[in-house]
Amino acid sequence: MKIVPPSIQRLIREFNKFPGIGSKTSERFVFHLLKQPRTEIEQLAQTLQDVKVKVHFCKECYTYTEQEVCEICRNPERNRAFLCVVAEPKDVLSIEQTGQFDGRYHVLGGVINHADGIGPEQLRMNELLERVEREHVQEVVIATNPDMEGETTAVYIAKRLEGKPVTVTRIARGLPVGADIEFADEVTLGSAMKARQKIL
Amino acid sequence: MKIVPPSIQRLIREFNKFPGIGSKTSERFVFHLLKQPRTEIEQLAQTLQDVKVKVHFCKECYTYTEQEVCEICRNPERNRAFLCVVAEPKDVLSIEQTGQFDGRYHVLGGVINHADGIGPEQLRMNELLERVEREHVQEVVIATNPDMEGETTAVYIAKRLEGKPVTVTRIARGLPVGADIEFADEVTLGSAMKARQKIL
Repeated sequence: MKIVPPSIQRLIREFNKFPGIGSKTSERFVFHLLKQPRTEIEQLAQTLQDVKVKVHFCKECYTYTEQEVCEICRNPERNRAFLCVVAEPKDVLSIEQTGQFDGRYHVLGGVINHADGIGPEQLRMNELLERVEREHVQEVVIATNPDMEGETTAVYIAKRLEGKPVTVTRIARGLPVGADIEFADEVTLGSAMKARQKIL
Repeated sequence: MKIVPPSIQRLIREFNKFPGIGSKTSERFVFHLLKQPRTEIEQLAQTLQDVKVKVHFCKECYTYTEQEVCEICRNPERNRAFLCVVAEPKDVLSIEQTGQFDGRYHVLGGVINHADGIGPEQLRMNELLERVEREHVQEVVIATNPDMEGETTAVYIAKRLEGKPVTVTRIARGLPVGADIEFADEVTLGSAMKARQKIL
């Protein structure tokens, strides 16, 4: 690798840190960039700087925003009675893209993960409880992943909200579109059966 | 997408231009970066700027370098009688990694591609002919891809060097490691047969 100029080597190492990107793909990225007009590299560097300087957490829901309060929290048409709890800002985007939720969000900043030493105190859990009370939320929809950490987090939130005048729901487990009943695991299929919907 | 801050949207579009990267993967990259300490974003931006400012073409072989002349061209131990012609700087890296070539390189900057309107005049073809003469090269090894454009380019170079006191060779076509003779195309298998090597 000594024949590769040091700055190129460093850039290959930088892209190598991206999720799912090995050194071969990283090399491809760098050589692709080098083939573009130099203004392209400049633009990418500038956009990164912009993100670094402008983006921070919404002070209400903790998703990413360039303002003090994000678009969703500022939107008077969003239903304040519903609060959807997600682990990460990118989950807000995923749920928004479904068009099935018109309430607001609360981003925890992760999930409870004992193996990684992440407990409720590392997450925005107190902020959630305060919001539920302050904003008179009627339903908290917990939309963490249907895995061990996501379930643990959901159960924890439900316990903390016990006895409060609020409904707590969990997004449904079921068969994804295009799945095959034959190959579905029994927990998923069981959940799909329990949560069956009336169609007629 | 209106809920995604503009600078984040722009960064997603930037990574979306990378080879093989769709908008989903690009989003993953951006949200990954946002989860890192801000110094990581700074470092990536800085490294890009470094590459943009420092990297240019070696004035002898036209690979990327931060000096006037690259490491390989400056190395007195490289055999100046052998010149390997490649399409792109990244091909130099691939061949170097084999450890099977101790001569020097000449990067054309592409291959002849009539469909894309790239003829010999867009490539560093005259520079190649001048070098062969000036540096008293004994063998020109053409290492362009074994596809239509690569072959066209190889034939063109061979013709231009006809009658000159230089041997022109082409890297061998044959079966790649792990391949199966049963599934090899006949051109490849035929080439492998013709270029067979004595082992005893």
